[in-house]
Amino acid sequence: MNEPDPTTELALIHWIRQRERSRTGPWTRQGIGDDCAILVPSPGSDLLVTTDMLMDGRHFRLEEDGPEAVGYKALGVNLSDIAAMAGVPRAAVVAVALPRLGAVRVAQGLHDGMRKLAERFGVDLAGGDTNAWDGPLVICVTVLGEATARGAVRRAGARPGDAILVTGPLGGSLFAGRHLHPEPRINEALALHQAAPLHALIDISDGLSSDLAHILAESGGLGAVLEAAAIPIHTDAREMSRRDGIPALDHALNDGEDFELCLVVADDDAARFMARPPAPALLYRVGEVTIVPGLQLRTEGGQVETISPRGFDHFRTIP
Amino acid sequence: MNEPDPTTELALIHWIRQRERSRTGPWTRQGIGDDCAILVPSPGSDLLVTTDMLMDGRHFRLEEDGPEAVGYKALGVNLSDIAAMAGVPRAAVVAVALPRLGAVRVAQGLHDGMRKLAERFGVDLAGGDTNAWDGPLVICVTVLGEATARGAVRRAGARPGDAILVTGPLGGSLFAGRHLHPEPRINEALALHQAAPLHALIDISDGLSSDLAHILAESGGLGAVLEAAAIPIHTDAREMSRRDGIPALDHALNDGEDFELCLVVADDDAARFMARPPAPALLYRVGEVTIVPGLQLRTEGGQVETISPRGFDHFRTIP
Repeated sequence: MNEPDPTTELALIHWIRQRERSRTGPWTRQGIGDDCAILVPSPGSDLLVTTDMLMDGRHFRLEEDGPEAVGYKALGVNLSDIAAMAGVPRAAVVAVALPRLGAVRVAQGLHDGMRKLAERFGVDLAGGDTNAWDGPLVICVTVLGEATARGAVRRAGARPGDAILVTGPLGGSLFAGRHLHPEPRINEALALHQAAPLHALIDISDGLSSDLAHILAESGGLGAVLEAAAIPIHTDAREMSRRDGIPALDHALNDGEDFELCLVVADDDAARFMARPPAPALLYRVGEVTIVPGLQLRTEGGQVETISPRGFDHFRTIP
Repeated sequence: MNEPDPTTELALIHWIRQRERSRTGPWTRQGIGDDCAILVPSPGSDLLVTTDMLMDGRHFRLEEDGPEAVGYKALGVNLSDIAAMAGVPRAAVVAVALPRLGAVRVAQGLHDGMRKLAERFGVDLAGGDTNAWDGPLVICVTVLGEATARGAVRRAGARPGDAILVTGPLGGSLFAGRHLHPEPRINEALALHQAAPLHALIDISDGLSSDLAHILAESGGLGAVLEAAAIPIHTDAREMSRRDGIPALDHALNDGEDFELCLVVADDDAARFMARPPAPALLYRVGEVTIVPGLQLRTEGGQVETISPRGFDHFRTIP
């Protein structure tokens, strides 16, 4: 940069605004610099809205991870939610509580991290709110997107006999910092939804067992049988297993923040998907929806065990 | 309530969702309970988006103010930003970092506070993100709205010779906790914009001098002369003045969080507004836009002094 670093809030906003001005797309009529952003949605499309807040010490460690990774993750997890509706992301607004010491440097790093994903996915950074305080960094991103002509895909919609698929290997996202670099499966979701009607869709943020349980609950209290041998296990999960002694399969079932998609489709569509996965999606067929409620796991030995959703509950440790 | 208090995140979300289910309006196709909210904007309307983050110790004191007041303020300041575009608010999403101890009780109080404003202004609470941590309460609300057929009113648009008006007495909002109970001037802004084209509009969150300076800067570097005798001074500002010795007028010019509107209109429209204010708006004509840049104040004695915007800068205290 040739300009001196901004040292006040207005100067920081000016700095971000200058960087964004030439980059906003046709959705954004008024970006940063007014009381609201003014957006122009596509006529007739449903609007998708998602918001996620990330806190230092809970979702990242600013000191170790640095602000760029935090910005990347904060936008990435929201884009993953848009992917989980098979939608197209369009614009984001960003609110931050910056630690007072080094606030401007942190804000600029956050922005650098967000820009990478914003550019890749054509998302306008259209507005926000900057604050500084004596507390730890908190960032809250809200992303707006739109459904395709096929409509948004919800969690509700799974039917007994449907197949359950995932888009990548699971587990151990904390091990090598992979949770900081979510790969939003936007293009995968769009390709899949274009190729066949998806009955239900979710992104795996809390863990496969928990997130699949959300689908089953929203679909009217259905159940599922997962095939242990078919669940793709990430190498990070195997590495964690070697260290903590917990089976790698448990990591794959219960760890969060993989940000792969879990989709439910008709059995014959699943067969076609597996024979010829719609690019760029990779697909693993992991189980089947049942009319009997509850989650079950068929082990490699052929036994069927009941399992419970064990993904992350933010409140579990409340006294 | 007959139901036992929710004690986990899912139970809390269920509790909020049950309370919201019957209340969402025609904008919300899918509210709480999926990866995104699905909204149906009015065809042809511009979409307005605003986000604001409030932190314990900075924008409120949870211990003294209680969670209901915090929820009320968090939604209120965002509605004020929609008013500042002369828009109609439609839906909100809410992300929170709850202090772990008492998280559920705090979340329920926040929700109670938000509901009051949401019901008054027809805003759907369409989704959110709940987190708990060992840090102080942080709440981030994002509101979506739409512009009327007359279009959104921006900060840019003031012209030399235009009149500057405000919708209520200013200053001292911290004195008796008035900053916790913003009265979003939604209906006032709509009535005013219907009655005459507003050239520029902003809500007074940082202080009149600062917020007016935003309008002047965005309008191409214009200036303004304010009439000291015409600036409506809130009784809270007079009370603060008695205690801190700072002139009440300074409080009116520089205190933040009044959440009244500052509007700029053609001189003849201002004359008609003052003769017959469009209900429910109250109006005070406080000055005039000038081609000469800078803010000036004509004292009651008739002298003209240069003043500088002295509203709140979150970063001013950075070392």
